Amino acid sequence: MEKILDNINSPEGLRKLNQNQLPQLAHEIREFILDTLSVKAGHLGASLGVVELTIALHHFYNTPQDLLIWDVGHQCYPHKILTGRKNNFDSLRQKDGISGFPAREENEFDTFGTGHSSTSISAITGMAFANQIQHKTNKHIAVIGDASIVSGMALEGLNHLGSTDLDVLIILNDNSIGIDPSVGALKEHFFQLENGLNHSVFEDFGMHYKGVIDGHNFDELFNAFDELNEISGPKLLHIKTIKGKGYAQAEADQVKWHAPGRFNKATGEISSVINSKISYQHIFGETISEFMRQNENIVAITPAMLSGSNLIQTKIEFPDRVIDVGIAEQHAVTFAAGLASQGIVTYLAIYSTFLQRAYDQVIHDVSLQNLPVVFCIDRAGIVGTDGATHHGFFDISFLRSIPNMIVAAPMDEMDFQNLLYTAQFTEQPFSIRFPKGNSNAEVLSNEFEKIEIGKAIEIQKGTEIAILTFGTIGQRIQNILNEINSKEKFGHYKFIFCKPLDFNLLGEILNQYETIITFEDGILNGGFGDSILEYAQEKDFKGKIIRRGYPDEFIGHASIEELEKEIGLDEEAILKFLIKLI
Amino acid sequence: MEKILDNINSPEGLRKLNQNQLPQLAHEIREFILDTLSVKAGHLGASLGVVELTIALHHFYNTPQDLLIWDVGHQCYPHKILTGRKNNFDSLRQKDGISGFPAREENEFDTFGTGHSSTSISAITGMAFANQIQHKTNKHIAVIGDASIVSGMALEGLNHLGSTDLDVLIILNDNSIGIDPSVGALKEHFFQLENGLNHSVFEDFGMHYKGVIDGHNFDELFNAFDELNEISGPKLLHIKTIKGKGYAQAEADQVKWHAPGRFNKATGEISSVINSKISYQHIFGETISEFMRQNENIVAITPAMLSGSNLIQTKIEFPDRVIDVGIAEQHAVTFAAGLASQGIVTYLAIYSTFLQRAYDQVIHDVSLQNLPVVFCIDRAGIVGTDGATHHGFFDISFLRSIPNMIVAAPMDEMDFQNLLYTAQFTEQPFSIRFPKGNSNAEVLSNEFEKIEIGKAIEIQKGTEIAILTFGTIGQRIQNILNEINSKEKFGHYKFIFCKPLDFNLLGEILNQYETIITFEDGILNGGFGDSILEYAQEKDFKGKIIRRGYPDEFIGHASIEELEKEIGLDEEAILKFLIKLI
Repeated sequence: MEKILDNINSPEGLRKLNQNQLPQLAHEIREFILDTLSVKAGHLGASLGVVELTIALHHFYNTPQDLLIWDVGHQCYPHKILTGRKNNFDSLRQKDGISGFPAREENEFDTFGTGHSSTSISAITGMAFANQIQHKTNKHIAVIGDASIVSGMALEGLNHLGSTDLDVLIILNDNSIGIDPSVGALKEHFFQLENGLNHSVFEDFGMHYKGVIDGHNFDELFNAFDELNEISGPKLLHIKTIKGKGYAQAEADQVKWHAPGRFNKATGEISSVINSKISYQHIFGETISEFMRQNENIVAITPAMLSGSNLIQTKIEFPDRVIDVGIAEQHAVTFAAGLASQGIVTYLAIYSTFLQRAYDQVIHDVSLQNLPVVFCIDRAGIVGTDGATHHGFFDISFLRSIPNMIVAAPMDEMDFQNLLYTAQFTEQPFSIRFPKGNSNAEVLSNEFEKIEIGKAIEIQKGTEIAILTFGTIGQRIQNILNEINSKEKFGHYKFIFCKPLDFNLLGEILNQYETIITFEDGILNGGFGDSILEYAQEKDFKGKIIRRGYPDEFIGHASIEELEKEIGLDEEAILKFLIKLI
Repeated sequence: MEKILDNINSPEGLRKLNQNQLPQLAHEIREFILDTLSVKAGHLGASLGVVELTIALHHFYNTPQDLLIWDVGHQCYPHKILTGRKNNFDSLRQKDGISGFPAREENEFDTFGTGHSSTSISAITGMAFANQIQHKTNKHIAVIGDASIVSGMALEGLNHLGSTDLDVLIILNDNSIGIDPSVGALKEHFFQLENGLNHSVFEDFGMHYKGVIDGHNFDELFNAFDELNEISGPKLLHIKTIKGKGYAQAEADQVKWHAPGRFNKATGEISSVINSKISYQHIFGETISEFMRQNENIVAITPAMLSGSNLIQTKIEFPDRVIDVGIAEQHAVTFAAGLASQGIVTYLAIYSTFLQRAYDQVIHDVSLQNLPVVFCIDRAGIVGTDGATHHGFFDISFLRSIPNMIVAAPMDEMDFQNLLYTAQFTEQPFSIRFPKGNSNAEVLSNEFEKIEIGKAIEIQKGTEIAILTFGTIGQRIQNILNEINSKEKFGHYKFIFCKPLDFNLLGEILNQYETIITFEDGILNGGFGDSILEYAQEKDFKGKIIRRGYPDEFIGHASIEELEKEIGLDEEAILKFLIKLI
């Protein structure tokens, strides 16, 4: 049988359908997504939850003239399928393929890029304001989830929007879950609204409020759009949806099916990735659990990344001492500062890219007061298919410029555990960055050693060239050196600490070598290599220093390996580079 | 007559007073503040507004065991006077004197440093959580203003706090004003609460709510404390106060009397600072106004710094195109991105230290999408008596590492106007940093020229040493060179752009000189000097490069001149340093 979806290549085509054809189209889009993602992997649950909403929006509104923003863009797959990217949907998140998030440069229907959450209200308010000034009459819609709307900037946006007369519709897609179940006081308020509470927080924020309606019911959606279309000024439509809707397994275990990887569509069996190595995330959770067993004065905090940071088991074992504060990075950091000020050993697990949200709090609340918060910076370096919005690019650079801050990165799993261990005895801010993915360990150790803060290690002495590494890239260098015949020409120095720097060892290196190469998994501007340059200049070093790391440009999506190849940090490229030097 | 205040040196002493003595004490504290600030200058209005509240809190609660945080600490003067700093209160904000904000290292009653706004709820929640774990029973109180509570992180804090059972009292000090009158939808809601609205937004956030009471009435305050003390869990007390209370002039013009400088207490006449020079802030506002007259497609945004950024007149002339979004830096940046995405020329006026709040939005919403927002970064560099929390220390470093971002700083007022002018024709993010205080101009120009982006200027050729300056410190170098006999030995190169760098001219400089000195008004780690180091190393420069700027430590409060002297960037120190070199 011919599918409706086969003939729909744009919202224009969609708008020619009768409303009674839409449930069938929704079904087909779900099947299409499941067929593709079961093979290609991606963010499944959120996209299944907004199929009806997406169809209804593009059917009712005149996109792209009417401007539509999807907050935290991983719910955008139905949108991409309906807006000209059906035929290359199977290139999703792959090298040279379409992005897993809305991207302005990809398509005119993607009005605003949204990889990080909670930006949509501010952006749509700006767009509506621009169009008001320019006397345009188009409509403005932003779709935001209940986990995202509690983040500070979304509420800042509401407070501004609600005081204007701008024609903006915010759709709250309430499914009680982000990646993990939603937390916080407003979650309870949303629950009360479903049960008929007669006023909403959004009215306090100046919005016209309508809700709660069933976000999978086309009649309810279109009736609401019709009604709200007649009302001027800012308004909020509260819809209830089910994450993973239409695929029983995904509805039943929403956390697991957020981004399940590949799976068997028929059976719902998720392909297990066979690997005997333990990931850094696994080490992190297990190690924190072990610390908590030994010391009841330890607390761990996560801003909505309980599963991503592998703290779920820790939370089960220590429910009172693992705190998920929701998508609230700013609060997370200053909350941590409050804990640390009262003598609690405080580990904050946060992705590098999301720590950017709390940069001021790191400076103003933690470092300026020299409070011993331990920043466990996950997903440092390139993260792969999530792309430009999610790489941990900047943290070395932005942390190194902050006084009092220790900036550390393990070369391997032992360093990692020892850094985590050492940090709890340290009386100043301590940051430990670590990558996404596997370590070389197959068995987890529970033996921890204190590391001397600021101390670098000579792994091997060389005769010509000194290689200085910061972070796990040091292991790649070890592998490469083992492949080089004249390995003895290269010294390799492991800098676990970018700050404080080991000036003693660095001084010796500057005396002994004429060529120095630095490697780091981060942007070069302001990074580890710069710290070596700074000291070398002070010491009047006349040799050559070559810095290798990330370039001064945004890097897109592909596998980690492909992206490292793209920027010349893969084994082959580094090997060639080193051989050429001697 | 003996004053009550004469015998009060601590909250312990205060608690021995009868409640009927407190109004007299409040009067005396106001007089004491007025007497001091009329001579020494400081934040007057906010502190006059919380005199009764401060007395009542320290009288009722057992500080410092009960933990008290003052959000945006400039309301802390009565607190400082009552907690052991009465006798050195006249050293406020001066070199080696007490800070104008709470500071942990200064006094045990200052439980958490608060220079930036809206941090108190997160910090007090962390403290209460720590004490719950440690089975302590002390109380936790944070006082926050209505302009601060709408900032994202405060709302994130409420959303978390309201879902806990922590014993925390938040006092909303509602006076309808921050530095400028409050804005936003919640402001209207607070107004409705005063008029008897029967539910509050805070209840939606899970808080027990009590309000609105008169914050200048001791009976009402103590009754509320008594009542709330019996209620477990998080609660919010909404009090109404008058900024500037008790000093007629300050009540009548609250914006002017926020921090009026010195004044005649008897007459209310504010000492005018006689200076024929025009400040950078003045130039900024006037120049933006002139642009708006010429181009109706221009918008200016400020996050709650309408008067600080001198946009008040511009707002009067163009009320629809100057937008104060309140204390909401994150929203401000993404709102700007939304405007820019629709073709509006968008100037965002923001202090360097507050731009830290929106670092992620600068990366994720503006730079990654290469949207042409113009960041007009005010108070860049050392700001003086506001101290460590307010210096514009980090922006060169944190902006330089962001791809697509133009990083510029004028050497003088002409550069400044021309940069502002040039930015409106540029199709990428453009940051322009400028200092607090006076330029050398006495008359404002309305002639603007486009500057070639990335171009540096040779001001004078030299025979031995090249001085490279970024920003207004270049003018100081000019003054100094004019005092040196062998001036011809020094070349002086003005870099208006730290990024992109003028590699052509820099290449020539590296060829011509053996010694290069860089000067910048910012932290050295990752800054302008580093960008010169990076290029010099690439070009195998074998000479000497000396970088001068801010050190890797937090700098306290004193006058700008005193602080520059402290870090060796004053004229005398630089002159000595340069003479020693030749």
